[in-house]
Amino acid sequence: MRRDAPSEDVLRVQAIAKSLGFRTSNVSGLTKIAVAIIGDTSTVDSAVFKVLPSVDQVLLVTRPYSRTSREGHPEDTLVDLGDGVAFGGGSFVIIAGPCAVESREQIIEVAHQVKDAGAKCLRGGAFKPRTSPYAFQGLGEKGLEYLDAARKETGLKVVTEAMDLESLPMVAEYADMVQVGSRNMQNYSLLTKVGSINKPVLLKRGSSATITELLMSAEYILASGNERVVLCERGVRNFSDHARNLLDLSIVPAVQRLSHLPIIVDPSHATGDMNLVAPMAYAAIAAGADGLIVEVHPKPELAKSDAAQALKPDQFAVMVAKIRQLAKVMGKKV
Amino acid sequence: MRRDAPSEDVLRVQAIAKSLGFRTSNVSGLTKIAVAIIGDTSTVDSAVFKVLPSVDQVLLVTRPYSRTSREGHPEDTLVDLGDGVAFGGGSFVIIAGPCAVESREQIIEVAHQVKDAGAKCLRGGAFKPRTSPYAFQGLGEKGLEYLDAARKETGLKVVTEAMDLESLPMVAEYADMVQVGSRNMQNYSLLTKVGSINKPVLLKRGSSATITELLMSAEYILASGNERVVLCERGVRNFSDHARNLLDLSIVPAVQRLSHLPIIVDPSHATGDMNLVAPMAYAAIAAGADGLIVEVHPKPELAKSDAAQALKPDQFAVMVAKIRQLAKVMGKKV
Amino acid sequence: MRRDAPSEDVLRVQAIAKSLGFRTSNVSGLTKIAVAIIGDTSTVDSAVFKVLPSVDQVLLVTRPYSRTSREGHPEDTLVDLGDGVAFGGGSFVIIAGPCAVESREQIIEVAHQVKDAGAKCLRGGAFKPRTSPYAFQGLGEKGLEYLDAARKETGLKVVTEAMDLESLPMVAEYADMVQVGSRNMQNYSLLTKVGSINKPVLLKRGSSATITELLMSAEYILASGNERVVLCERGVRNFSDHARNLLDLSIVPAVQRLSHLPIIVDPSHATGDMNLVAPMAYAAIAAGADGLIVEVHPKPELAKSDAAQALKPDQFAVMVAKIRQLAKVMGKKV
Amino acid sequence: MRRDAPSEDVLRVQAIAKSLGFRTSNVSGLTKIAVAIIGDTSTVDSAVFKVLPSVDQVLLVTRPYSRTSREGHPEDTLVDLGDGVAFGGGSFVIIAGPCAVESREQIIEVAHQVKDAGAKCLRGGAFKPRTSPYAFQGLGEKGLEYLDAARKETGLKVVTEAMDLESLPMVAEYADMVQVGSRNMQNYSLLTKVGSINKPVLLKRGSSATITELLMSAEYILASGNERVVLCERGVRNFSDHARNLLDLSIVPAVQRLSHLPIIVDPSHATGDMNLVAPMAYAAIAAGADGLIVEVHPKPELAKSDAAQALKPDQFAVMVAKIRQLAKVMGKKV
Repeated sequence: MRRDAPSEDVLRVQAIAKSLGFRTSNVSGLTKIAVAIIGDTSTVDSAVFKVLPSVDQVLLVTRPYSRTSREGHPEDTLVDLGDGVAFGGGSFVIIAGPCAVESREQIIEVAHQVKDAGAKCLRGGAFKPRTSPYAFQGLGEKGLEYLDAARKETGLKVVTEAMDLESLPMVAEYADMVQVGSRNMQNYSLLTKVGSINKPVLLKRGSSATITELLMSAEYILASGNERVVLCERGVRNFSDHARNLLDLSIVPAVQRLSHLPIIVDPSHATGDMNLVAPMAYAAIAAGADGLIVEVHPKPELAKSDAAQALKPDQFAVMVAKIRQLAKVMGKKV
Repeated sequence: MRRDAPSEDVLRVQAIAKSLGFRTSNVSGLTKIAVAIIGDTSTVDSAVFKVLPSVDQVLLVTRPYSRTSREGHPEDTLVDLGDGVAFGGGSFVIIAGPCAVESREQIIEVAHQVKDAGAKCLRGGAFKPRTSPYAFQGLGEKGLEYLDAARKETGLKVVTEAMDLESLPMVAEYADMVQVGSRNMQNYSLLTKVGSINKPVLLKRGSSATITELLMSAEYILASGNERVVLCERGVRNFSDHARNLLDLSIVPAVQRLSHLPIIVDPSHATGDMNLVAPMAYAAIAAGADGLIVEVHPKPELAKSDAAQALKPDQFAVMVAKIRQLAKVMGKKV
Repeated sequence: MRRDAPSEDVLRVQAIAKSLGFRTSNVSGLTKIAVAIIGDTSTVDSAVFKVLPSVDQVLLVTRPYSRTSREGHPEDTLVDLGDGVAFGGGSFVIIAGPCAVESREQIIEVAHQVKDAGAKCLRGGAFKPRTSPYAFQGLGEKGLEYLDAARKETGLKVVTEAMDLESLPMVAEYADMVQVGSRNMQNYSLLTKVGSINKPVLLKRGSSATITELLMSAEYILASGNERVVLCERGVRNFSDHARNLLDLSIVPAVQRLSHLPIIVDPSHATGDMNLVAPMAYAAIAAGADGLIVEVHPKPELAKSDAAQALKPDQFAVMVAKIRQLAKVMGKKV
Repeated sequence: MRRDAPSEDVLRVQAIAKSLGFRTSNVSGLTKIAVAIIGDTSTVDSAVFKVLPSVDQVLLVTRPYSRTSREGHPEDTLVDLGDGVAFGGGSFVIIAGPCAVESREQIIEVAHQVKDAGAKCLRGGAFKPRTSPYAFQGLGEKGLEYLDAARKETGLKVVTEAMDLESLPMVAEYADMVQVGSRNMQNYSLLTKVGSINKPVLLKRGSSATITELLMSAEYILASGNERVVLCERGVRNFSDHARNLLDLSIVPAVQRLSHLPIIVDPSHATGDMNLVAPMAYAAIAAGADGLIVEVHPKPELAKSDAAQALKPDQFAVMVAKIRQLAKVMGKKV
């Protein structure tokens, strides 16, 4: 509050804080009076105070997420998909596959290829969020069946996206891990429902989400009962034009300090450019990430979506070989 | 393509373009060879070409939305809510009300207040997307009933948000105009469903959406059969900290050049600060906007959400009075 | 500090604060201990505390600029160029002219045109900061002489940019108001020198400057002895592509609350598109700006720089006519 | 151009192109007519065409930098500081030291420490660009003398910033490599002068500069005669708040594709947080960077600037040890 605040203004702030169940304590400085509001303020809109007379600023001291926070949960969470595939705790898990499932043959072919190179999970969209209503939207349930067939052939775990409440139960039935896409990071209805299914969740950061918003979206899932959440950095919007998005690797160690949840990196969507994928994948493991999700397509020039960012299987194999070497230095197990 | 591209690389680009149904034409420059690909390219992923050998860049000449574009639809679209309330065509429509419906009394009180001041539509969320799972999430169907009661008392049209596929039918039943919120601008399942209802839609720009993405999201709704779409600018994410978002008024004339759809402005969510709402509202009408959506609360300091950005009814009335004067200068009818 | 901070950590923070001349006061909450540091903290790097053990965050309560702040200087500053041309205090000053001075004839022709339409000041660069070393860099002193000739013919005040320490004295000799360009907003050597000349200064916001950084740059000039500073919003960098920059009109009322300095708007550089200039100029006066700087060129298609954003003289005249009408509503005098 | 452009509009575009010395060639599509303008367009403002009637867009095919581009200079440039210290060509050079030179003892102490750990160059500002005019601005020439003393004691090469034309000659006399800071990346007067000195230059990316702008700023230096330029990524402005800036590692491989100049990374200024420095340094070498510039201070809590981002000497030594291991994997020589 301003230093010259009339005492009735200060008293009003204190009275409202008390009516909401908090204690207060004042500190007078040269140009301001600070009124400390003490208690669990995470459920209160700070704006309640900001609108009062003589109030200059409202500063938040306590972070608004509790289940996601490392404060009450100091050890790393391990998100286990079974059969020795687990995110967190010193492992580095590679998820690979095409942007979209295009056919039974395509997905089985690429599943073998990425498994041989060292991937533990298969990605591939059956339901595709596309900017244009006229673009290929995915094969739907047929795509899920093909993913299932690829899993049976290779033993890879299946990671695929659920786009809405309607398709979630079907996706959850087929998937080993349900992806919530970047555009849905703040689709709270979907997050809440995903919190009630019994499958691990891959939650991708929204393209303009702060770290707090990302952790709050995870909090929705945890608060609904599902604690098996893996976060994923996939680039943020910005002014630059040398890559589709700006990959924010600094969020990896930042998340690891604030939260106990694992975090992986998607260099394919982050850059949109196959020439930048491998350098960013190497950077991701060096930054401490718990894994990678990367697009691989047997014939990128024939891909129905995101062709420019898909690696060819042999490029992917070369990349994984170098990642194995980096993993040794970083003390991770691929 | 690079100037030194081997002729087989150029031929391959031409062959693939032909196989997709296009004609091609080459132009050789000093450092590049340009291969023009001619036809309706809106359904093709340009990356198909970007990955080919010797290809340097793929530049798009044709815009990827057709129904939303002014090119095939030169006159302004008029989105009519009935009883003389219509967006577009020289009118300036004011939507006002609280962030959330909190009680029957609250919404009826504020409905009378905003009507008296000059609003034609009442806003108020019954379903609220909140960053925190622990924050007030809205009254649900009760909230819709209270909005209906306020409409019956005042004659105001009701604008309220549908957050998901599940609640959409219920919201569409009560609302005169269904809002798709900023966080759902790229929730394509919701957009497609909204395209099949028989109610006007208020589509808010996502906080990091480009103009193309905004118009493509509108295209989803139009392509699904609903042409009564009003766009809404509500601020974008950026580095600055003097307002919650950065209100982008330049998108108003830019949209009006590219599209026939009306566009309104939300200065409340854009700024998050009641001190900035009126100046930005005046700027919006001066920039050529077709209307305004603004938060008004009878007692902002008791609001359950977004208190800091709500105007008091008397502040709102003062603001509307000045907007009327500006409207005369701008040739608009409030 | 964390709630479980050992008492020696808390004592260390207090001891360091005391050694720097501050008083302290502690407040204990549920998860944190707040140590208030009391005194004039504007000269201390807050990081000194951030690196100490158990310290979680350092929050700044007092703003770091004093001369620029409205707190100690409640009335608006009037920046007077003489002959009745003054920024601030209810006037709305229009500065117009070409991006660059190209010839004696060009600048005199356009000076007459903008004067007839209602401009009070003439803009035109003699020294041009250009992204490319191969682009036209301005006429230098010849350009200044032509500006002087145009001033003598029309009585308009001359506003022109000083790019570096070397050319500043020469520019200051010819100009009625010296412009510090956007790219130089944090060229502190230039700001300090500009603070020692006896000419009003137009300080343009950097393309990614926060409001605090803008006011701190003004503080450099004021602290060096020159209090005649006018700020200028000219758009910020962001992800969108419908305009060159994103015009941030909300900074106008925000600056007016925090500072006593006048602030004007540059819709030409902000948008880079002549179709968007007039709508943004109307929005600027409606938002409360104290003036406008706008590019006008007698023949935009022959301009040596920034052709796409220059208005033709007749477009400019139409725009000023409408601005006069808006000024009446906003209580401003053009 | 629009498909329905009258033929006189098309002819005008062709005529103007010809008058500027170019050939043209037309391609007609479904909704557009493309007029290819052929020749060295880098010296022409594209807006000259954009303002003409019926012109819809101007797309640039040729990049506007030639000396900096890899197209005419396919091999990597090696920037040699002598005594075996060279940037580019498979080496990974570490520059370390305090933000500012504070005293003779401090800089000599830290020089020994960083040399022992493996640094080849010493950083330390004698002239400091500070946001506040009241903050410590550096020791000036005294600081340069202390750097010289530290060089004599340790054999480290000295990298230090020149802030303006006035101090450049003095800085160039003492430094082995002259730094142009982020805020001066578009200070074209300084760039031009730096192009005429006979010392290698470290050019830091501006906090909202695109890759093209960065390379154009390098082009200023090369065009003025100095080809020994090393680029430096140091984070860009964005909306997020978990780090001071957003480190953009994807620009490293992007620059390496477009240009022959070496590029290093500054994780200290990018993050502003010592907890994030080491992870980002590891990520930098993994992304393919040619070196690192990092802040190290013997006693960060007593630093006069940027305390929160400085590593302690023992933290730095641990970091360099891991970088050596990563370098082996990446085929680099520290």
